[in-house]
Amino acid sequence: MIDYKLHIPGPVNVSSGAYQALKTPVMGHRSPDFVDLYNKCQPLLQKLFQTEDPVFLCTSSAWGAMEGAVRNLTKKKTLCCTCGAFSDKWIDVVQRCDKEVDALSVEWGKHIDPNALDEKLSSGEYDLVTLVHNETSCGMMNPLEDIMKVLAKYPDVLSVVDTVSSFSVVPIQKDLLGIDVLLTGSQKALALPPGLALLSVSERAFERAKTIKGRGYYFDFLEFLKNHEKGMTPSTPVIPLIHGLLYTLESIFEEGVENRFQRHEQLNNQVHQWIDSKGFELLPEKKFASKSLSCVKNNLEMDVAGFVKALREEKKLAIDGGYGKIKGKTFRISNMGNEDNQSIEFLLNQMDDIIHRFLPS
Amino acid sequence: MIDYKLHIPGPVNVSSGAYQALKTPVMGHRSPDFVDLYNKCQPLLQKLFQTEDPVFLCTSSAWGAMEGAVRNLTKKKTLCCTCGAFSDKWIDVVQRCDKEVDALSVEWGKHIDPNALDEKLSSGEYDLVTLVHNETSCGMMNPLEDIMKVLAKYPDVLSVVDTVSSFSVVPIQKDLLGIDVLLTGSQKALALPPGLALLSVSERAFERAKTIKGRGYYFDFLEFLKNHEKGMTPSTPVIPLIHGLLYTLESIFEEGVENRFQRHEQLNNQVHQWIDSKGFELLPEKKFASKSLSCVKNNLEMDVAGFVKALREEKKLAIDGGYGKIKGKTFRISNMGNEDNQSIEFLLNQMDDIIHRFLPS
Repeated sequence: MIDYKLHIPGPVNVSSGAYQALKTPVMGHRSPDFVDLYNKCQPLLQKLFQTEDPVFLCTSSAWGAMEGAVRNLTKKKTLCCTCGAFSDKWIDVVQRCDKEVDALSVEWGKHIDPNALDEKLSSGEYDLVTLVHNETSCGMMNPLEDIMKVLAKYPDVLSVVDTVSSFSVVPIQKDLLGIDVLLTGSQKALALPPGLALLSVSERAFERAKTIKGRGYYFDFLEFLKNHEKGMTPSTPVIPLIHGLLYTLESIFEEGVENRFQRHEQLNNQVHQWIDSKGFELLPEKKFASKSLSCVKNNLEMDVAGFVKALREEKKLAIDGGYGKIKGKTFRISNMGNEDNQSIEFLLNQMDDIIHRFLPS
Repeated sequence: MIDYKLHIPGPVNVSSGAYQALKTPVMGHRSPDFVDLYNKCQPLLQKLFQTEDPVFLCTSSAWGAMEGAVRNLTKKKTLCCTCGAFSDKWIDVVQRCDKEVDALSVEWGKHIDPNALDEKLSSGEYDLVTLVHNETSCGMMNPLEDIMKVLAKYPDVLSVVDTVSSFSVVPIQKDLLGIDVLLTGSQKALALPPGLALLSVSERAFERAKTIKGRGYYFDFLEFLKNHEKGMTPSTPVIPLIHGLLYTLESIFEEGVENRFQRHEQLNNQVHQWIDSKGFELLPEKKFASKSLSCVKNNLEMDVAGFVKALREEKKLAIDGGYGKIKGKTFRISNMGNEDNQSIEFLLNQMDDIIHRFLPS
């Protein structure tokens, strides 16, 4: 059993209330008691997704649902907007599904330029665009509204937007922005343990899926829809996490969604102030910095690995030492989930206590 | 929250110890602490699977892993051995993956005849056979050893065996029988909540996978293998259920695997005696009756729905009123998981208390 608290950008620290909810006794997934649980979650999910489309509960990591979107929605070619480790990976996933793909790439930490997207789409080659809203590897949040304005010009191009680390941190107006598939996972901003993906699918995405062969069963959007209409999932779902989800949704609406957005912004600013005060810089431009986590550029040439290790072992707090090719060149601090001023202040103070040992003298 | 105990054939009743394990704090899935958890489970899983092949932890229902097997292993044609609702469904799943498929079908409740399988395979048309070892919908257990003897004659035909409701109830010697993919789920005989599939994959299945396009990412066997070698999973896994799995594996070896097999046989006999004493019959031939559950033929024309409802509402015990097209014509009682003589006796006594009200006078 671990003896430290998670401030890594997912999985994040889970509240004792959410853990307690996991223990709610399991029922048969074809029983009226399950339908009741499903139907309690659904309106809260739709409110949070800002959508009238169904929100599906998918027992997988978010990558499962992301692969599902590819299998369900593209027959021409997919354009992956890539700006970090997770958006990059999507190219690989599309190829592994034996589908055509191109990338619209920017350097890690930079944002996707809506004009560049417009130019790409004007070729008429694509029928699907994938976008990671908040690139967790770089702490960069793409300008979703402007990107969706471009997509609105191309009604034959569907959009899949991964909001794994931004969902419930900032408002995302699915229907208003015209997002076809909005998906997220349980273990980041929702602060549940991993194992459940949530996705909301538009009517025109269902229409597209009907025309596509080889969608499979497990991630088939039409199978999800058919079962949704009965208050069920296609396959046996991860019921403990759905109990946890209901608990979490009720907590979110108890806090108030707007309050939740404000709290995240405030905590994010608190971390940014600490970063400034130390003389560190953010990896992305401030304007595109994530509100969920801070990806700090190691411009001071700190011993990141040593700092992260000491913080975990001595202070019992886990932050992240950078992802993939920017490991050591960056470090990341999450403010997702149930953090508050006190808990973030505590983290920053503990970091202050030891950081001098890892900075060049 | 439900107020009754599950004796349906999955999900089954979860012990308080297993529920407690779900609350173990989540760690980062790329951290040494996760690797430690993974590596603690692995040797116990291999022992239980009776294999030297890796056993993968897949965050999905068993259907996810079953679809994965299809996507990874067939390019010619799949032969699905069908003998009930779940084995029937596999035909549909293969078709939805846009792959060729035939069925070797028997009536629900009958077993797959090894000779008929031999005849089918001798055509040389097939490169994959799917088999549901214990058809949960009919309470019928196929003669696995004899079936695998037939498959041994066809080295180019790979086998996928679903043991969702027989794994850890009866011994299944994966390596000795030459099963290529042995898979199970968490919520039946292992008595964990649903959300985790377990599968062990043979060397020649990996070799086959290497030659097949469109395997995707989420269920790609080679991706599982690559991550397994680091003590990890390809995607963020359902960590609470892995904590629960470790707890369950330790409990199983504490009881002793042989004792566990014997206990299940004994409890199954106890239910069979009750069935005989009432004048009911089993749906399958006694020789092929499942050791995990009893599928009872409604030869006495009982009001099954009424009986099941009263048992749940008055006695707080849930059994199953029959699956799919044999709903009402059968009912099912599970003896999977952590049941013992007392708990099964209690169930049977409670059933005795009310059954007369639902039998024709």
